[in-house]
Amino acid sequence: MLDGLIQKNNTKIVLLVLDGVGGLPVRDGKTELELAKTPNLDLLAKKSALGMHIPVDYGITPGSGPGHLGLFGYNPIKYQIGRGILEALGLGLEVKDTDIAIRGNYATVEYIEGKPIIKDRRAGRISTEENQKITSKLSQAIKEIEGVKVHFASGMEHRLAIVLRFPEELPEGSDRIKDTDPQKEGLEPIEPEGENEASERVASVVRKLLRNIQEILSDEPKANYVLLRGFSQKPKMESFESRFGLRACAIAVYPMYKGLASLVGMELVDFPGQSIQDEIMALKRVWEEYDFFFMHIKKTDSYGEDGKFEGKIKVIEEFDRHLPEILELKPHVLVITGDHSTPSVLKGHSWHPVPVLLHSPYVLGGTSERFTERECLKGELGIFPAEKLINFMLANSLRLAKFGA
Amino acid sequence: MLDGLIQKNNTKIVLLVLDGVGGLPVRDGKTELELAKTPNLDLLAKKSALGMHIPVDYGITPGSGPGHLGLFGYNPIKYQIGRGILEALGLGLEVKDTDIAIRGNYATVEYIEGKPIIKDRRAGRISTEENQKITSKLSQAIKEIEGVKVHFASGMEHRLAIVLRFPEELPEGSDRIKDTDPQKEGLEPIEPEGENEASERVASVVRKLLRNIQEILSDEPKANYVLLRGFSQKPKMESFESRFGLRACAIAVYPMYKGLASLVGMELVDFPGQSIQDEIMALKRVWEEYDFFFMHIKKTDSYGEDGKFEGKIKVIEEFDRHLPEILELKPHVLVITGDHSTPSVLKGHSWHPVPVLLHSPYVLGGTSERFTERECLKGELGIFPAEKLINFMLANSLRLAKFGA
Repeated sequence: MLDGLIQKNNTKIVLLVLDGVGGLPVRDGKTELELAKTPNLDLLAKKSALGMHIPVDYGITPGSGPGHLGLFGYNPIKYQIGRGILEALGLGLEVKDTDIAIRGNYATVEYIEGKPIIKDRRAGRISTEENQKITSKLSQAIKEIEGVKVHFASGMEHRLAIVLRFPEELPEGSDRIKDTDPQKEGLEPIEPEGENEASERVASVVRKLLRNIQEILSDEPKANYVLLRGFSQKPKMESFESRFGLRACAIAVYPMYKGLASLVGMELVDFPGQSIQDEIMALKRVWEEYDFFFMHIKKTDSYGEDGKFEGKIKVIEEFDRHLPEILELKPHVLVITGDHSTPSVLKGHSWHPVPVLLHSPYVLGGTSERFTERECLKGELGIFPAEKLINFMLANSLRLAKFGA
Repeated sequence: MLDGLIQKNNTKIVLLVLDGVGGLPVRDGKTELELAKTPNLDLLAKKSALGMHIPVDYGITPGSGPGHLGLFGYNPIKYQIGRGILEALGLGLEVKDTDIAIRGNYATVEYIEGKPIIKDRRAGRISTEENQKITSKLSQAIKEIEGVKVHFASGMEHRLAIVLRFPEELPEGSDRIKDTDPQKEGLEPIEPEGENEASERVASVVRKLLRNIQEILSDEPKANYVLLRGFSQKPKMESFESRFGLRACAIAVYPMYKGLASLVGMELVDFPGQSIQDEIMALKRVWEEYDFFFMHIKKTDSYGEDGKFEGKIKVIEEFDRHLPEILELKPHVLVITGDHSTPSVLKGHSWHPVPVLLHSPYVLGGTSERFTERECLKGELGIFPAEKLINFMLANSLRLAKFGA
């Protein structure tokens, strides 16, 4: 739709994602956003365009991957990010077009007649520290297999991620390899095999990788094997800059969100600290360098996931106190929204539409009193698919030419 | 979209269809729903998710077939139910994958030079009783043609339905046979011919059937011929249970709606009586046996079709009095809506969006005061395609897994 309409100018767009910000009533029939005291947001809401976005589809609860792809203007059903990639991104590994990313579990096997039989699929849930020690051993011992670079990253307890970086871009379907985890103890791990020529090439590297791992871990009492799941390659995606004409950067603390931003080619801004204040400092520092600023605040979601609505309210209030600093930068377009809802009462992501606030000189405004679920329902943006948010942002920054004469 | 996301649990979902419930102002600028006194619905509306569904598309007036398919989660444009099937279902015949269903008219022909020439396409609109007598004569005389079972059902005045049940499932396109009714008196009926091999096989059976009918009706003074229209076979549809993981039943009085429910594989609940009270008794009786309960209330539509808005209001009020009994069953998700609007002022189905109320523990609520067209417009569900209602019902019963990680 936007092909041929994109035009460049010097406007600046801020996309501020309060992760999981949408909620449901938690006390006195009010949601977290309704209970939060947000004088600055209230003021902004009165003169902004409000609405609700649907991350994926009616009734569908999105993971963080589809949630963010939508906000970035990519259809989250068309562009599906595999489990291996999300795990790798979440643990801080980079994923390129040349890569196969894999989720792994340390496991315990016992050799019976020379064959590995799974005794514990999670290696007795070894400690995260133990995991880091073992993963670092693997990283040092295995750097390359037949010209394919191997990257390991340790996760929580028994989890790890592996990225295989091939010398050249891989054809589509290279990740068609079944999980090696048979999902049951007492069985032999499944030997990785490709379902087509391209994935068989990957599988042959994986088989050698597994032999090497077995050897290196042979004297480990618990974690003497690695089960692999979620083989995946990056979907072919045009970069954010070439698609929308925006030089974009990401200001985020958690690896997963940095990873998602880098998947679409946003540049990652390094900064010290982890607080909202630290993120705003970073935003100010790079303000002149980009057109588009994706800023991610995680804690709204974390408290929602834990069912701690008081904590979620506090993060919203903390953000509200910092809002004037962002407004002082005078972005032409400022969007405040979430990647999905995380109602504290559900202790997890949910399917509910997500409040959106869009501030620009070209909005109606005056429809609503606050940035809350119920007030956003009254707004001029209506209820719309997340992937159309980019259209609103581009339009309001006067970066879209007229369609037709 | 829902592929791979469906998960089962013990929740119960009630889909309550007040046929044709939506309306337009009839008195004092108020619609039937607005004029009705509905204290129980009002109370429920305040704490429910409200919205409007679009049965087929903006501005499109649906028949009962597409209206219900949408509510059942099937795209009503993709799955079109032929006229013959709707007629057969409406007259209480079953329609299976092996069947060809046909609408028929009794007609009067005169034999000129041995050829039948149509004198009256409706056999002088014989009485329904006369029709029943003649149809029963046909039923007794013609039970099978070349291994194909034949079922007749009499309708109002000159109308009837015929179902041909073949010994095995029919290939797609088997219903490609043109109407035999030339739509004009003074002409010969059109000889049925198949447009392809599969339909020609059906046509050859139909030709023999017509010869038999001619013979049996030869001494009838008026109804001495049958014109056939709307040859149709059931579209290939995955069953409701395999598609959505819900064991579903239908509680309905009129054959058409039972038929539509059975087309998607819902089980029909038999019960005595025809009142709303009778339907609720049936609902209570089978409450433990199913996950999903489609309950159909017809009279709202009937009064709308007759332009009798007072009658429509009374049915809505009657339903309201019974609502507490349904709530006492504590369904996890209760949806109240219509299959389309039937404004009394239009005396027929209309294209207007249809009010939807969804009650579950996971709604915002508090957006609206009543279950009316204007109050539903303020609701959190927005205006959405009918076929997405199933997503909302599944999400709110926690039967959908997260999409992506």
